[in-house]
Amino acid sequence: MGVVSPKTHHFSEPLSLVCGKTIEQYDIVYETYGTLNANADNAVLVCHALSADHHAAGYHSNQDKKPGWWDLFIGPGKPIDTNRFFVVSPCNLGHCSGSTGPKSINPASNKAYGPEFPIVTVVDWVNYQARLAGVLGIDQWAAVAGGSLGGMQAMQWAIQFPDNVRHAIVIAAAPKLSAQNIAFNAVARQAIMSDPDFHQGRYYDHDTVPASGLKVARMLGHITYLSDDAMGDKFGRDLKNQQLNYDYGVEFEVESYLRYQGESFVNRFDANTYLLMTKALDYFDPAEKEGGDLSEVFRKVSAKFFLASFTTDWRFSPKRSKEIVKALTDAGRDVSYLEFESNHGHDAFLVQHADYISAFSTYMQNIEVTS
Amino acid sequence: MGVVSPKTHHFSEPLSLVCGKTIEQYDIVYETYGTLNANADNAVLVCHALSADHHAAGYHSNQDKKPGWWDLFIGPGKPIDTNRFFVVSPCNLGHCSGSTGPKSINPASNKAYGPEFPIVTVVDWVNYQARLAGVLGIDQWAAVAGGSLGGMQAMQWAIQFPDNVRHAIVIAAAPKLSAQNIAFNAVARQAIMSDPDFHQGRYYDHDTVPASGLKVARMLGHITYLSDDAMGDKFGRDLKNQQLNYDYGVEFEVESYLRYQGESFVNRFDANTYLLMTKALDYFDPAEKEGGDLSEVFRKVSAKFFLASFTTDWRFSPKRSKEIVKALTDAGRDVSYLEFESNHGHDAFLVQHADYISAFSTYMQNIEVTS
Repeated sequence: MGVVSPKTHHFSEPLSLVCGKTIEQYDIVYETYGTLNANADNAVLVCHALSADHHAAGYHSNQDKKPGWWDLFIGPGKPIDTNRFFVVSPCNLGHCSGSTGPKSINPASNKAYGPEFPIVTVVDWVNYQARLAGVLGIDQWAAVAGGSLGGMQAMQWAIQFPDNVRHAIVIAAAPKLSAQNIAFNAVARQAIMSDPDFHQGRYYDHDTVPASGLKVARMLGHITYLSDDAMGDKFGRDLKNQQLNYDYGVEFEVESYLRYQGESFVNRFDANTYLLMTKALDYFDPAEKEGGDLSEVFRKVSAKFFLASFTTDWRFSPKRSKEIVKALTDAGRDVSYLEFESNHGHDAFLVQHADYISAFSTYMQNIEVTS
Repeated sequence: MGVVSPKTHHFSEPLSLVCGKTIEQYDIVYETYGTLNANADNAVLVCHALSADHHAAGYHSNQDKKPGWWDLFIGPGKPIDTNRFFVVSPCNLGHCSGSTGPKSINPASNKAYGPEFPIVTVVDWVNYQARLAGVLGIDQWAAVAGGSLGGMQAMQWAIQFPDNVRHAIVIAAAPKLSAQNIAFNAVARQAIMSDPDFHQGRYYDHDTVPASGLKVARMLGHITYLSDDAMGDKFGRDLKNQQLNYDYGVEFEVESYLRYQGESFVNRFDANTYLLMTKALDYFDPAEKEGGDLSEVFRKVSAKFFLASFTTDWRFSPKRSKEIVKALTDAGRDVSYLEFESNHGHDAFLVQHADYISAFSTYMQNIEVTS
């Protein structure tokens, strides 16, 4: 996509949230790639997961070393082909990359929201993204696409606005978190919230950052994004130095890698946002209002679905995608599902993989848009 | 076993450790069950894992609510039948239940060892347990038995003292930690060591305990001890209260359970010992000196082996036990291996299971001892 620039839209209409609170006004930061056609029927909404944001493709400057998080999948000739599609990639409410979130100034207090920022859910994000669609003149998405928590948003779009989504692209997702998924999130939050520099979420006022806690949370997260096999192949029991030191410093490469990942995350991510994102994951459960019957929920859906999962993903394993597929087929919906061999665990949805890219491209090419 | 009492033996002969340091004098706390026969050929050494200790069977008083950690497996008529066997269950060096460890007084400084306590390895524990065997007049163990880290000690005994072990009982163990196993330990240590109350391990001097860090470490550990399925069956997405509160308190039962487990652990366990135990796990790698060829190591072994693993154990999965079995068979050793269906994950080695208990009993009954 070359060099891209984020845009910001300020919304002054209050947004009511599932938690019962209202956010009075807010900014949405977003990027777009490609051109909206005359009929506005070629728009694709890309939804980000826990730690990514609106910067999904291209570079912010010629000096940037890394492109957006889904750059392999968005651009001319790529699965989400910007020669055909107009891509909209917003930063979610509560995030820390420009959209209104816990570190933004609360107009009511003239201080950062911190812990006053309300809990946001996937349902809220879909409403929020719908507001942006309105601003951009998009009545119906050709597709809503995402991986992991992003895939949950795509699913929720099809449920919440059945007339406004033609295709839902749900990669490496789950119909809801398992007890184990919730447990990992609980440990991550415990690490952050028990860091004395957290100050009940008001660390902005104390000029501190709960760096230790966020580092632990991210290290833990990383283990769940990678497969046991991939970690074994990449690091095995390789030592950081030539020999064992028998102390509490770094002995193994995998320790060094995790510490680095944790530390670099602390520099770019807000701890309160991390908490919010894990809660959004925990609360996601579209079948809950139908007594757990997801197929009943899908009966009201009109979008066609494309799902993909990856063999070594143990965060949201293929079994979890198959639960969605079964509910869709039970409801008589149109669904394409592919399970790909991959060594990359949950991260596979972000990684180069010829068969995955080919299948994703084919599916997207078959989506009809006017020229 | 009824009411049992721990014993203590003080050793004043220095013990040289793998790390290069020496521990000048130390106490071993241990329990015994049953009676050593005249030929001293009916002794079974039971080795504990990360968080257990010498209290393997029976009760410490009539008021005790819980028996020792392997009480289901040790006692009259149980797999390790105390009508036939004399069971020795020591608390390992570095632990916090009575044997010399980081919270013990260092005679050199008259202060708690804290971070000065040397790193101990499975090899060191075997040497340490061998000293106890000498005191008790046991030249050869009928069997050395344990689960998880305890199973690693049983394996190491057969390797390190091939003439002094007739049978090695290795349950739910692995030949060495995987990168993922090491990664989980690294996160647990990070949580403890970054707790400001840790004071570089000298928290005894500050009258503090790194409770937050140890709690996070234990919560994380618990996730790896239970299976995804077992957590799902036990907790699912059950709520702690009747409704969602949309805040950072406990929403789901599984969160409540983990917090409780973390908090109660802090009251009974020493953080420096937790660090030591995870390091002992990380360093365990008996094949390392043979260039990774475990079968080469087993060629010098004379003990017969009994191994067991459990289908939903993802900490040390059946695959890891099979690596040991393959190395043993490649080396021409005598090995019995059983994989049991269980929903209990890694904890299955501690849990009632008719087939497991039956197979374990049969194996033990076939061990010859003089009467």
